Amino acid sequence: MKIVLDAMGGDIGLSVNLEGALLASRYFTSNDTIILTGVKSEIEQYISKKKMQFNCKIEIVNAENNVGMGDSPTKALQEKPESSIAKGLDLVKSKEADAFFSPGNTGVILAFSLFKLGRLRGINRPALGSIFPIGKHPLVLDIGATPDSKSENLYQFALLGHEYMKIMKNMDKPVVGLLSNGEENSKGSVVYQRAFDLIKQDKDINFYGNIEGDDYFKDKVDVIVTDGFTGNIILKFAEGMVHWLKDNFKTSVKPLPFAIIGVILSIPGILGIPFFLFAIKKMLKKISYDEIGGAPLLGIDGVVLIGHGKSNPNAVKSGILNAKKLVEHNFINELKTIFEKRSGSETD
Amino acid sequence: MKIVLDAMGGDIGLSVNLEGALLASRYFTSNDTIILTGVKSEIEQYISKKKMQFNCKIEIVNAENNVGMGDSPTKALQEKPESSIAKGLDLVKSKEADAFFSPGNTGVILAFSLFKLGRLRGINRPALGSIFPIGKHPLVLDIGATPDSKSENLYQFALLGHEYMKIMKNMDKPVVGLLSNGEENSKGSVVYQRAFDLIKQDKDINFYGNIEGDDYFKDKVDVIVTDGFTGNIILKFAEGMVHWLKDNFKTSVKPLPFAIIGVILSIPGILGIPFFLFAIKKMLKKISYDEIGGAPLLGIDGVVLIGHGKSNPNAVKSGILNAKKLVEHNFINELKTIFEKRSGSETD
Repeated sequence: MKIVLDAMGGDIGLSVNLEGALLASRYFTSNDTIILTGVKSEIEQYISKKKMQFNCKIEIVNAENNVGMGDSPTKALQEKPESSIAKGLDLVKSKEADAFFSPGNTGVILAFSLFKLGRLRGINRPALGSIFPIGKHPLVLDIGATPDSKSENLYQFALLGHEYMKIMKNMDKPVVGLLSNGEENSKGSVVYQRAFDLIKQDKDINFYGNIEGDDYFKDKVDVIVTDGFTGNIILKFAEGMVHWLKDNFKTSVKPLPFAIIGVILSIPGILGIPFFLFAIKKMLKKISYDEIGGAPLLGIDGVVLIGHGKSNPNAVKSGILNAKKLVEHNFINELKTIFEKRSGSETD
Repeated sequence: MKIVLDAMGGDIGLSVNLEGALLASRYFTSNDTIILTGVKSEIEQYISKKKMQFNCKIEIVNAENNVGMGDSPTKALQEKPESSIAKGLDLVKSKEADAFFSPGNTGVILAFSLFKLGRLRGINRPALGSIFPIGKHPLVLDIGATPDSKSENLYQFALLGHEYMKIMKNMDKPVVGLLSNGEENSKGSVVYQRAFDLIKQDKDINFYGNIEGDDYFKDKVDVIVTDGFTGNIILKFAEGMVHWLKDNFKTSVKPLPFAIIGVILSIPGILGIPFFLFAIKKMLKKISYDEIGGAPLLGIDGVVLIGHGKSNPNAVKSGILNAKKLVEHNFINELKTIFEKRSGSETD
């Protein structure tokens, strides 16, 4: 298996990505390769300086480090064909690699993916999917690829999410919900009301109907369909909430030294308090996005995952391992077969 | 001052509303009146059975209890002119009352408010505003009145939010942000990009520009402008998160009895642990929506507030007290003057 990592992407870039690759390599064998795209001399220098020992093969493909996090996709598409993103996706296109992961500029990765790999049959616009580690651990899509989603796009996201859960989670009939401002069928904007009808008409989809914001936390659905605008805002709201809780947690445990003395002085306390602290830490970790890593870009003809710009080495590791999982499940070929069959039967 | 409470509204109805009115009455004097609209015999029976002693005058206006939480606004408008909602708003229209609060069906309250009280000059669609008890405690609008917001609506929400913070919070130059899927000016759907330009062009508004989901928790803006679809989903996501955290908190403090024995046995521990528990409880309370109460319906020519259907007596109390605050600040007349001046200068 060969996975490409854009070694230059993200807010920090090189160091975080290489440390993440090192962590991920533990889960690979000596038959596997992590291909690093980026400035070769800088990558080699970092690896040798840190005396990094990878558990799989490493290949470096020289590329430019010229895509900033705020760059315009259209401009990058025209002017940056030598970037670490473009060259990484070239390797997927030519089948020299099985998957691509980058914590870089989402818009630019999206533009190059569309340009180089193209869309699956029957898909007009791609969606970024992300598993939320709450409730039933639903796949939420779109979280940012298509902010101006039309009804047809939302319907196609429902199909993509449905197939993702079948292939990746071995689900027979994943339950799909449409995120709206109320449970009643009549709720939602005009775009959402039409999307509701389109999804409902599709007999392949196990459609729950409309769901609400608090249903992220409930055991209702396996797939949450939303537009890239709303989905992105909620993702960031959730991230903000986790940081806010962590900050509040830190402030609230400041008097902890006193408590620890108390615990040491009393045997029964030892049974209770560490357990309590552990539970709260576990709870915060559960909702931490470092643990999730790359979000798959669904609807593209190739395995592409995008990580958070603020990824730390752990998040980069998770992104690479998510790419590995998609390859192991033969995800893109399975998905292609399904969509080609669907398109075929529609034109019959 | 006379405040109308829809005594029949909400998931539970009568008992919760009357208990809430009793709590709220402590903040009124014997010159003030809470007017209860609803089934007179039931209200009188509950008050006498519970031997309720209010700290202000109570008036009961007989009305029907015939609006369910799932009722269609159009149908209610035609068929339910005798409902506790319709009769309550009649009292505001005829100036027999200063404000109206209901934890009932949002769509029906909205429809009757538009029909009976009308809109302010220069406002096409109303917005529900809510103060979020996080970050800078921003006013977020719209949280559900106008799911299909157009660019002009978003611009008018910015104006309404701006004036609300000036009148109610005595702010000189409240900072207004537009919620989007990225900070760059180019982010957002077509509707949002046009709204961005409209707000930016208005020299009266202190416009921050686009903000992201995690900015709810940061000290950036005083007003968050969003459409009723996205705003509603985020509000419910936040509510879901608070419940989820509370449930997790309860599970994690199950071993607490051991800890308490530990604390009792050790004096130093007493200094630390209760403080810690108190801090976490306070943190959860801070983000609890019971504490907020009614959301003002902005853009309507009258003081109307809507509460959560799941309101408990505390939330009903908060709703009534929020209505009181708006009346004390002479909110609606101040707002009318400003919008009439604006519309006047535009047509000059």
